[in-house]
Amino acid sequence: MTARRQPVLGILGGGQLARMLALAAAPLGVKTLVVDSAADACAGQIAPLVVADWTDYDALEHFAREVDVVTFDFENVPAETAHWLAKRVDVFPAPRALAVAQDRLAEKTLFRECGLLTPEFKAVDTRDDLDRALAVVGAPAILKTRRLGYDGKGQFRIKTLADADAAWAALGSQAQAHGLILEAFVPFDRELSVIAVRSRDGDFRTWPLTQNWHTDGVLSLSLAPASDITALQARATGLARTLAEKLSYVGVFALELFVKDGELLGNEMAPRVHNSGHWTIEGALTSQFENHVRAVLGLPLGDTSARGLSAMFNWIGELPDAAPVLEAIDAHWHDYGKQPRAGRKVGHATVCAPDAGRLVERLTGIAHALGRDQQADPAVDKLRETR
Amino acid sequence: MTARRQPVLGILGGGQLARMLALAAAPLGVKTLVVDSAADACAGQIAPLVVADWTDYDALEHFAREVDVVTFDFENVPAETAHWLAKRVDVFPAPRALAVAQDRLAEKTLFRECGLLTPEFKAVDTRDDLDRALAVVGAPAILKTRRLGYDGKGQFRIKTLADADAAWAALGSQAQAHGLILEAFVPFDRELSVIAVRSRDGDFRTWPLTQNWHTDGVLSLSLAPASDITALQARATGLARTLAEKLSYVGVFALELFVKDGELLGNEMAPRVHNSGHWTIEGALTSQFENHVRAVLGLPLGDTSARGLSAMFNWIGELPDAAPVLEAIDAHWHDYGKQPRAGRKVGHATVCAPDAGRLVERLTGIAHALGRDQQADPAVDKLRETR
Ligand SMILES: Nc1ncnc2c1ncn2[C@@H]1O[C@H](COP(=O)(O)OP(=O)(O)OP(=O)(O)O)[C@@H](O)[C@H]1O
Ligand SMILES: Nc1ncnc2c1ncn2[C@@H]1O[C@H](COP(=O)(O)OP(=O)(O)OP(=O)(O)O)[C@@H](O)[C@H]1O
Ligand SMILES: [Mg+2]
Ligand SMILES: [Mg+2]
Repeated sequence: MTARRQPVLGILGGGQLARMLALAAAPLGVKTLVVDSAADACAGQIAPLVVADWTDYDALEHFAREVDVVTFDFENVPAETAHWLAKRVDVFPAPRALAVAQDRLAEKTLFRECGLLTPEFKAVDTRDDLDRALAVVGAPAILKTRRLGYDGKGQFRIKTLADADAAWAALGSQAQAHGLILEAFVPFDRELSVIAVRSRDGDFRTWPLTQNWHTDGVLSLSLAPASDITALQARATGLARTLAEKLSYVGVFALELFVKDGELLGNEMAPRVHNSGHWTIEGALTSQFENHVRAVLGLPLGDTSARGLSAMFNWIGELPDAAPVLEAIDAHWHDYGKQPRAGRKVGHATVCAPDAGRLVERLTGIAHALGRDQQADPAVDKLRETR
Repeated sequence: MTARRQPVLGILGGGQLARMLALAAAPLGVKTLVVDSAADACAGQIAPLVVADWTDYDALEHFAREVDVVTFDFENVPAETAHWLAKRVDVFPAPRALAVAQDRLAEKTLFRECGLLTPEFKAVDTRDDLDRALAVVGAPAILKTRRLGYDGKGQFRIKTLADADAAWAALGSQAQAHGLILEAFVPFDRELSVIAVRSRDGDFRTWPLTQNWHTDGVLSLSLAPASDITALQARATGLARTLAEKLSYVGVFALELFVKDGELLGNEMAPRVHNSGHWTIEGALTSQFENHVRAVLGLPLGDTSARGLSAMFNWIGELPDAAPVLEAIDAHWHDYGKQPRAGRKVGHATVCAPDAGRLVERLTGIAHALGRDQQADPAVDKLRETR
């Protein structure tokens, strides 16, 4: 019996995604080391934490020496930092793939190259560009920063052409540093996401499509597998695979899609585990977190089948009472160990059931006890409609 | 939104049970703090670790101030330490319950008071006692230390009365410090365990009965739910409940049972989460680890139903190749992050399936790939027999 050394996974960013990655890594015998600029980053409750910012190369040098592979909790790590680390240690997804996913323009351009339609879009760098873009894209439209947006931040909705000045007032100052993009507003029928994973040797898998509902630009509720997806699943999986292969992508990513008149449109891709895949912890045979760890460490991927039906509530701002979730059958509480703060993702709950009838029962029971019927309603309606 | 303080669970002992408790505590928003005398205790990879032994009252004082509730990874914490802590902080299970479970004589005496038969037994303190005990109990028998035994350690099998001297030579030196007990050897038909949990307000639940197979006194394989248990489940649950109520027990415990001619005999109780309940992580709606955390913290208990069938392989000494488990459907790898060492529990794998046929297929596939058909055979035979 020879002594062993456990592999160490480095994670850039110490939020709830890093926390759930660390929890999934442990049973695989994989240690984690997290970098975050905040000393109270919630992943630090599970894994050792290096407190440093993205340009603290002394700290990053130490970090790189301690880890075997580096991955991301946070996709907006500066490209320079990612490149610098990639010279010292394996980084997955690779900086090139990260760079594309960081930029709404590059990402939508790639979608089209891969045969995935997108909402009409135009790059916007100046106030004049905005007028020219509006002339092509039309209104309603959304002006977004090309980089650094998340949870609907860095976006301005243009209802009529008269909103152009207000949009520029809101985001124009970011045009130079991050670039802007004007997108046609899509009156979509629904939003879906495909969570996909690709291994170091090219094995590719997707979880069943998830339907998502947003409130104020932030994910509120997910339902998986989404209903009536027989026609869409193969197409979404094929597109995700083409994308992944084009980018030589390694790890989990999410492709956010709009469905309009049965057609898929690409919204964006997230080069990491994704909020709309949290249901996979209990709802799938292998979670997105475990498969991401497996992928970046070069281990075989696990089966991505769903166990039954799952719905996930996001808890934004502060946690509701846990008791109704803890008391429900096959319902699972996830507290990220964060301080409450308006708009912050502080936890989620996943409710599973073997069939739509029982999922409706459990969802409505929990939502009602929490006085949050509205949050559950979209999934409940969908489940009732398709039973 | 008011700032929050997360509860902190203190765990005495930092082995794999503490590690899996910490992993289950995190999603509940519960922090953990572990005490162990070894700086490399494997739970220290998941939770902060206080390196101290059981009589280091300075360290324990600090520990007690940091935690809200104390529980055990290790049942042989000295009674004095448990009592000392219980004066400062809530300790669950309470020291009195722990004391009974630490002592094979007290435990078997309690079993009988609760209406649970046991193998014939006699306390043994001297060489003469041993002869007197053998005259009553007969051979074959097992001489055991009353305290501190685990994984079959501190036991001597007496095949004929002529083995009495050898038994005394092996264990006599421990008679004074720990006491000994002579038990009739039971040629059991099978071994079952019931994993049970009782909450602070008396809610009581059991998981389905588990069948266990030991090799050299160490658990090798578990199968859950055990087959043909309709007649036994209610009886085992009733006995576990009586025991728990007599002890005002709070938390998870295991009751190890022999089945002989359809009759249940009590072997021992473990006042903690138990190796034969590891399958509940993936195989039940709520795991033993999560329900233990919920119980000791005063949270509502979760549903203990099984999802389907599960079998658990114990990895003793060193880990086999992980790939066959990682590649199998609904099979789950658990590496405890320990250095290999003969006889040491270093990990386990749980294989789940919706029915016996598929469980046999998955089990035999994995066992064959690992060259460990023998380890799986007892469960495979059992599953084939009952299909
Ligand atoms: N072009 C569009 N047409 C219609 N709705 C849109 C459009 N772009 C964004 N949205 C809505 O706003 C939500 C958030 O937008 P987007 O995904 O671009 O932002 P984000 O800041 O990256 O958010 P997240 O981090 O939650 O993915 C979308 O999920 C969708 O509901
Ligand atoms: N009286 C008995 N008759 C037959 N077999 C026995 C008897 N006592 C123990 N054994 C066998 O030895 C195994 C280990 O014994 P026991 O449970 O007493 O020891 P332990 O050291 O506490 O082990 P563990 O920590 O694995 O529970 C039992 O599970 C059973 O297989
Ligand atoms: Mg988005
Ligand atoms: Mg035992």
